Amino acid sequence: MGLCQRWRRLRLSGLQTCRLHTAAVPAPPQWLAERLGLFEELWTAQVKKLASVAQKEHRTIKISLPGGQRVDAVAWSTTPYQLAQQISSTLADTAVAAQVNGELYDLERPLETDSDLRFLTFSSAEGKAVFWHSSTHVLGAAAEQLLGAVLCRGPSTECGFYHDFFLGKERTVRGSELPALERICQELAAAAQPFRRLEASQDQLRQLFKDNPFKLRLIEEKVTGPTAIVYGCGMLVDLCRGPHLRHTGQIGGLKLLTNSSSLWRSSGAPEPLQRVSGISFPTMEELRAWEEGREEAELRDHRRIGKAQELFFFHELSPGSCFFLPRGTRVYNALVAFIRAEYTRRGFSEVKTPILFSTKLWEVSGHWEHYQEDMFALQPPDSDRLSSSLSDHAPSHPADTLALKPMNCPAHCLMFAHRPRSWRELPLRLADFGALHRAEASGSLGGLTRLRCFQQDDAHIFCAPDQLETEIQGCLDFLRSVYTVLGFSFRLALSTRPSSFLGEPCLWDQAEQVLQRALEEFGEPWELNPGDGAFYGPKASVSLLQIDVHLRDALGRPHQCGTIQLDFQLPLRFDLQYKGQAGAPEHPVVIHRAVLGSVERMLGVLAESCGGKWPLWLSPFQVVVIPVGTEQEEYAREAQRRLQAAGLVCDLDANSGLTLSRRVRRAQLAHYNFQFVVGQKEQSKRTVNIRTRDNCQLGEWDLTEAVQRLLELQNTRVPNAEQVF
Amino acid sequence: MGLCQRWRRLRLSGLQTCRLHTAAVPAPPQWLAERLGLFEELWTAQVKKLASVAQKEHRTIKISLPGGQRVDAVAWSTTPYQLAQQISSTLADTAVAAQVNGELYDLERPLETDSDLRFLTFSSAEGKAVFWHSSTHVLGAAAEQLLGAVLCRGPSTECGFYHDFFLGKERTVRGSELPALERICQELAAAAQPFRRLEASQDQLRQLFKDNPFKLRLIEEKVTGPTAIVYGCGMLVDLCRGPHLRHTGQIGGLKLLTNSSSLWRSSGAPEPLQRVSGISFPTMEELRAWEEGREEAELRDHRRIGKAQELFFFHELSPGSCFFLPRGTRVYNALVAFIRAEYTRRGFSEVKTPILFSTKLWEVSGHWEHYQEDMFALQPPDSDRLSSSLSDHAPSHPADTLALKPMNCPAHCLMFAHRPRSWRELPLRLADFGALHRAEASGSLGGLTRLRCFQQDDAHIFCAPDQLETEIQGCLDFLRSVYTVLGFSFRLALSTRPSSFLGEPCLWDQAEQVLQRALEEFGEPWELNPGDGAFYGPKASVSLLQIDVHLRDALGRPHQCGTIQLDFQLPLRFDLQYKGQAGAPEHPVVIHRAVLGSVERMLGVLAESCGGKWPLWLSPFQVVVIPVGTEQEEYAREAQRRLQAAGLVCDLDANSGLTLSRRVRRAQLAHYNFQFVVGQKEQSKRTVNIRTRDNCQLGEWDLTEAVQRLLELQNTRVPNAEQVF
Repeated sequence: MGLCQRWRRLRLSGLQTCRLHTAAVPAPPQWLAERLGLFEELWTAQVKKLASVAQKEHRTIKISLPGGQRVDAVAWSTTPYQLAQQISSTLADTAVAAQVNGELYDLERPLETDSDLRFLTFSSAEGKAVFWHSSTHVLGAAAEQLLGAVLCRGPSTECGFYHDFFLGKERTVRGSELPALERICQELAAAAQPFRRLEASQDQLRQLFKDNPFKLRLIEEKVTGPTAIVYGCGMLVDLCRGPHLRHTGQIGGLKLLTNSSSLWRSSGAPEPLQRVSGISFPTMEELRAWEEGREEAELRDHRRIGKAQELFFFHELSPGSCFFLPRGTRVYNALVAFIRAEYTRRGFSEVKTPILFSTKLWEVSGHWEHYQEDMFALQPPDSDRLSSSLSDHAPSHPADTLALKPMNCPAHCLMFAHRPRSWRELPLRLADFGALHRAEASGSLGGLTRLRCFQQDDAHIFCAPDQLETEIQGCLDFLRSVYTVLGFSFRLALSTRPSSFLGEPCLWDQAEQVLQRALEEFGEPWELNPGDGAFYGPKASVSLLQIDVHLRDALGRPHQCGTIQLDFQLPLRFDLQYKGQAGAPEHPVVIHRAVLGSVERMLGVLAESCGGKWPLWLSPFQVVVIPVGTEQEEYAREAQRRLQAAGLVCDLDANSGLTLSRRVRRAQLAHYNFQFVVGQKEQSKRTVNIRTRDNCQLGEWDLTEAVQRLLELQNTRVPNAEQVF
Repeated sequence: MGLCQRWRRLRLSGLQTCRLHTAAVPAPPQWLAERLGLFEELWTAQVKKLASVAQKEHRTIKISLPGGQRVDAVAWSTTPYQLAQQISSTLADTAVAAQVNGELYDLERPLETDSDLRFLTFSSAEGKAVFWHSSTHVLGAAAEQLLGAVLCRGPSTECGFYHDFFLGKERTVRGSELPALERICQELAAAAQPFRRLEASQDQLRQLFKDNPFKLRLIEEKVTGPTAIVYGCGMLVDLCRGPHLRHTGQIGGLKLLTNSSSLWRSSGAPEPLQRVSGISFPTMEELRAWEEGREEAELRDHRRIGKAQELFFFHELSPGSCFFLPRGTRVYNALVAFIRAEYTRRGFSEVKTPILFSTKLWEVSGHWEHYQEDMFALQPPDSDRLSSSLSDHAPSHPADTLALKPMNCPAHCLMFAHRPRSWRELPLRLADFGALHRAEASGSLGGLTRLRCFQQDDAHIFCAPDQLETEIQGCLDFLRSVYTVLGFSFRLALSTRPSSFLGEPCLWDQAEQVLQRALEEFGEPWELNPGDGAFYGPKASVSLLQIDVHLRDALGRPHQCGTIQLDFQLPLRFDLQYKGQAGAPEHPVVIHRAVLGSVERMLGVLAESCGGKWPLWLSPFQVVVIPVGTEQEEYAREAQRRLQAAGLVCDLDANSGLTLSRRVRRAQLAHYNFQFVVGQKEQSKRTVNIRTRDNCQLGEWDLTEAVQRLLELQNTRVPNAEQVF
């Protein structure tokens, strides 16, 4: 098929949806023709060369297949796809890439040597990454064709893909253009264009991308060897390591989701880019299912629930901070009270530390060096500057700049250090619900997920090295207890020290062993992520050992909330010491830990996880009392007072304009855990007739006993009070 | 007595204590001689004139005395002192000033007309003010003589007096100079110099004070009529409205307390002044008693208790903010939990609002105009400034400056306004323990009394005008409940609108009547302070109606903690509206109220009030378990665990190096409410032997029952758990 022909075939259907461009682009532009011409030329040469090598060597290689089976293949000729076909046509159809001796391969890339062969499908995370990465090329091709885009980057993400491209300094992608772009993507997918992997020299690369300044810069910065990989797919040629799907036809369903702007931040001046994001699946059915799940998730979006249930709101006069309304504050305080109760049980001591500190503190802790731009800093009041400048001691030194604390640890170090400490006091477990402020960019703020002001169930354990294992086990047990009550499962992963670690290697070795033993002892499955240890603060250079905690909510969605981190550096930075058993001064180790993490964020996670149907102990809608008629209003009010005096949330629905059943229904829709209906009989017997929000009838209860039972269920924090009442 | 003679007589004894000056000042300086000469001249003229008026008129006037008795007197001749002598010599000796038809008179000032006469003694607040104001003249005279001071101001304070004077730009008063100064004061007092009241013309004033630039400026600024009052007393002449004691001999005991620097802040450039403060009493015995009380108070100083009991500490890296250690946090949280429980009982809804707001909010509330310099302001993060400057809407407008909230009210107004409100929702009582920041000058910071960061038990009641009375009564009842539990008595005073009030007079009239009715209904005594209504924020111009609450702690010391304020302006500034019963929009009224006030400060007041012997429910030292021997340690530990699991604070004193009685004594000195002693018998019977911190033996108790009883006493917040156990 000639170039112009192919261009027209590809463009036509897309262009029909976007008349504007029909007249303007009747044939492929010159640069595209040149790029495609060169690619075809190089491709033909590569195919010939491979065939010749294969024929010349004519070598048989041993391939070990997934089931353990071993088969023969021809070096430089047999492809993973051919072997997949031998295993099953389903596998051949659903495989998205191969893993050859651990390395990712295109399915059509010939095998070179004896290999251990595995296949990736969409069901694995790596398979999804290949699938979405391939999909973003389709999006790039569509943007080139429809919008004349100069392509920049197009990665897969955790849940889909996006492509950044340049449309000129002024032009943006409008939301109204997404349907046309999506239609072209779907056409390109339907055309089942093969992805063709080509090895090209640096000169050839520069020739292929001579019209794309972004790619040229990438070549200059990233391509270090003599050759690199480019892919051709339909009209598109892109610089890319791969691997990809065999052809675009494997993309059965594709949907574009959002358009936004982004920035080219490589060396040189930043350029405004356009970003389009999307999602894709092997089949249209999977796309449909995803869309339904998304609608469900939107219904469960904590911002929607927060508004509908009047839990909280946001206001432009305090961006990134949440206003918790009475009901939201109730949930918030119930979470804090839960953790406080655990603190009492587990020997943690709650403390309260200031919010505003001299930046000198953050210099000691290292935050000022590494985290400064994420902190809110301010000048002290005039009087301080005056008195400081008048002072004899530092006549020319201005008073300290102050900053709002982004973390509690340095304050807890000051507390440890404020008087001499003895080994008898260890482990010292200081817990703090102090308000933290982080100067998150306004663009990254969203609901309760990312805030500028929040509180954590933050604690720091100062302990002796030989107490570490027990303390870590205690932290893990704390996590499990709390997550069990909240209805979460969780996965643990140990990230060991990064290559750029500070301090004594043997200390790190020991600590890693301690953490591993604690994890083994704990008995839950865990993974090892070697060299993945966190940094101290997002951009800092001090390394930590860390147990990553990934919880899964009731919908199976992952969240990272809790954390357990081991820190040898902070005690050194603050020169923390205690008198050891032998009398000599020793440095404690610090464990940073949180279970809920940000209380605000956890509240959002829980709202979504329960879909607004709060468990009794957290619920801002525990009971509504519904009098059958106006004659029972007084008794209903008394019942309400009794419940409220017991500390339970109780509303009254005495609206006699609505029928009883309408009011019961309304209460159930509002997710009141229990409805206490009181009629003539209940009034005379001082009882209540109880229903649950799932419309289960629990029958007549003595009012006092009902209150007692509710308190019991609240205090034991059962997740399903309605079932076990 | 000639001038030089008097000068020498007065100076000699003082000078003996301060050799340095003996040679330098052998005779009174010229300016002093001139001033005294002029004063004597004017005084003689005034005495003559008065005698002549009295004789010429020879008018009998009717005087009504305190007991209701009416006596005759001679106009321009009879003095209050003469009448006091007629009543009793004790009254004549102890009276410090008179009140003539409501106006304050010197005791020696002749009566002019028919009068209602009362006498002030040191026992009343007004009497103390006259007494201390007279004493500060003695201090001024001593400073003139000993230090060559140029006198500035010398007011009485709530507890004593101080005098500000100028010693030149470089010279300061040293602490070592206070004893000499005090000795001169005592000599001057012993000399029983009369205070002589003189009416002088503006010219005469300028002549008298020609050597004192401060007084000259005061004359210029403050003396508006043709004449003003000056007083002579010994060598001193001072510009002063009076009244004063009859003579300095009434000052039986005087003590100087502190020296510090201050600033002359009248118009013109500020001048550095020296401030010496002191206290005085009618008798030496009263001074001794005060000194003892002060030592006691120092022992009770909350900073000392805070350190000794490890409740909290301060750190230079966060000036004006408190670090609450575990024990202090326990007291703090118990106070907050107490108020929370009251909130539940009283229909208050707790909310949580942000800490950081755009200054636009403070512009609306008026804080930015009037309170700005007491607020911590800061610039938003870079990203906001960038995005804001890139935005289409406001290309040249920088992002908002942010400020830490000094009060919660504006945030609560946003909350009221965030959706339409109906009359059915009123009264809406929003309570908030949010952290407040105020940029107090570093010099004014002290312990927990004045902080830069604190939390209040702050609430705002949004109500309809016809709900005001009930709500005010509710606030008063709230105050009484809490103060009763805390062991405080209190006085109430209603400050009515200041002369510069804003808004409708009839609205204010109604509101004042409502408050008066609420106070009457409440049944506790209260005072009226007309025109004393507070301003909105320390320096703002919006007026409020206010009920001042002065509590008295267990030592009878006054504190101002709670507040009840009525605000018509804030709802207008925020344009708050609700749909009234008739359907039309109406403005709510706002009541600002707090009971504890700053929780931090209240914690300090309570620490001093109980002298570190905390009531059980607040105590960070509830129980210590003391095993008799090492064999009982295991059981003691179990008892400790049981108590801790119940949420009680329980320590263990298993130090077997000390005898049992030493350990019991140690626990009592540490103010543990209860000591649980466990020996062989207790271990076998699962009991504990209970003693209180006052060493009262409560005998053997079943452990479970003891825990139960403690919980009961804790939950009911009894003040004397040790007695009623």
